[in-house]
Amino acid sequence: MAVHVLHYLHDGHAQWGVVADGAITPIPGEFRSTAEFVEANPVERLLSLDGPTIPESQVQWLSPVTANQQFVCQGANYRQHMIESGMDPDAKKFNMIFTKATSCIVAADSPLVKPKEVRFLDYEIELGLVLKRDITSRVTVTDENLHEFVAGAVIVNDYSARDIQIPQMQFYKGKSYRTFGPVGPYLCLLQKEEIAKLGELVLTLTVNGTVRQNDTTAGLVYGPAETLTELSGVQDLHTGDLLATGTPSGCALIIPSPEKQRAAAQLPEAEKWRLFLNLQAERTQYLQVGDVVEARIVSHDGSINLGVQQNRVVAEAP
Amino acid sequence: MAVHVLHYLHDGHAQWGVVADGAITPIPGEFRSTAEFVEANPVERLLSLDGPTIPESQVQWLSPVTANQQFVCQGANYRQHMIESGMDPDAKKFNMIFTKATSCIVAADSPLVKPKEVRFLDYEIELGLVLKRDITSRVTVTDENLHEFVAGAVIVNDYSARDIQIPQMQFYKGKSYRTFGPVGPYLCLLQKEEIAKLGELVLTLTVNGTVRQNDTTAGLVYGPAETLTELSGVQDLHTGDLLATGTPSGCALIIPSPEKQRAAAQLPEAEKWRLFLNLQAERTQYLQVGDVVEARIVSHDGSINLGVQQNRVVAEAP
Repeated sequence: MAVHVLHYLHDGHAQWGVVADGAITPIPGEFRSTAEFVEANPVERLLSLDGPTIPESQVQWLSPVTANQQFVCQGANYRQHMIESGMDPDAKKFNMIFTKATSCIVAADSPLVKPKEVRFLDYEIELGLVLKRDITSRVTVTDENLHEFVAGAVIVNDYSARDIQIPQMQFYKGKSYRTFGPVGPYLCLLQKEEIAKLGELVLTLTVNGTVRQNDTTAGLVYGPAETLTELSGVQDLHTGDLLATGTPSGCALIIPSPEKQRAAAQLPEAEKWRLFLNLQAERTQYLQVGDVVEARIVSHDGSINLGVQQNRVVAEAP
Repeated sequence: MAVHVLHYLHDGHAQWGVVADGAITPIPGEFRSTAEFVEANPVERLLSLDGPTIPESQVQWLSPVTANQQFVCQGANYRQHMIESGMDPDAKKFNMIFTKATSCIVAADSPLVKPKEVRFLDYEIELGLVLKRDITSRVTVTDENLHEFVAGAVIVNDYSARDIQIPQMQFYKGKSYRTFGPVGPYLCLLQKEEIAKLGELVLTLTVNGTVRQNDTTAGLVYGPAETLTELSGVQDLHTGDLLATGTPSGCALIIPSPEKQRAAAQLPEAEKWRLFLNLQAERTQYLQVGDVVEARIVSHDGSINLGVQQNRVVAEAP
């Protein structure tokens, strides 16, 4: 059975607990990082957790992924999102990897701060995977042994300043602003027999109640096993690290058609980006101060429910 | 006066010491991270360090930047390098920022492992800055207060797999392979009156004794103060974090002229990258197994000498 874990603040103390039906059963012990928590709490042990509960309404959410962990992301990784972006998913030749600064990680109900220099603020619901063990050399991860490498799943919103991210080419800065990475609320720890459900999750994002993104993880181009296999040949990954697996279609961002991109490539750089920004300015989908974004990820059968993220867009303090 | 610090292994213990004339004066205390070391050892205190010394030849170098720190990098940040890459430094509109995985950090004399899937392995000598304090909100860094934010300087080699980095667009993966980030040997801690010398350092990189890169930090497009000012508005930075400030001209990488890039933009993606790789294949400057890369950074007056990095290229173990 899947176990839904909450990291929270209660009576001034950071604590971890198992959530069911709005009640939290606190998990004994002090775990200062996701790594420490995951290492000490295999899902099998938490299944038998017992004790007095507290109402979930009495606690303050914290991100289940702590800022010491790595925040590695995949780009352009859903079939429909690639098609909308003028790419052919069947012709995709590489798994695009980038990072977000971990200082952007906030709780799932955090306000989203629109930086004063950012014009085009966009949302990206993503399935986040939390690692179960260190990976410090090449390993072959398969669907069969994936449960040895992935502890569980979380909702991630990869908020992005498109006017920084796209014209500056490297995604890091435009995706790393403080509050641009809500994680949680629940870290759903999975047993071996449930790990296949990672491929059948339904992602839904709304803005002010209107659905903007709605897809399933069946549309992933590079799945978790092949991604971890490749990354293991590049870098070390550690228990508790976060892999955000990319976002489905439906973002505010509009990418010019391949024909228009080819035409724009003939223009001076400044003119090319002026046209790009003009195109974005026509998109009313970009987030404005006061907007409320909600993100949900659930399995078809309801056994995995990563909770609801809710972020209200606020202006940066002057 | 500048103080040159070495992080090293001696008798099985990781230790920090002040280096002068080939002798190390060990610094009392145990510091498990660059943050802990920098916080506990202001340069003014180390100036009066005294005690028995050990010969530098008896120790094993460690990176003065530990893997828990952030590794933030600037791209295309030297005037001559931009001109060679078909860009106009005076028209540059943004400070390109990306990261390397910290698991690529190794000691300055580490072998450089050429991954089996990598064909075009390149070097990039860079001045690295080590931060003196946490930055967790917008600050204005100027040449006058830079010494409050920068503890000192190191050599960084931002080794890059060009056949991964460039066609995959996001630089992270192609620059994050294990051993792709030698740091050190010396962390040169600077006093207030020496901080201006960061703008007058001479960088020299040789391959098998032949000079490939040779420039001064006077050619930096975005300097340390404006870069830290901008980054402070995006993300948190912490004591001991590393900012690599970009590399001068002279890399193996050859970027097609703007005219050729415009022509290539009309081609199908696969054909465009085939031409790019063909162009690189003509460059005999790419590193081969057995090559030896040496990197040096010194000030004109010799008061700052960050030591010599030496990396021999080795094949990845099968």
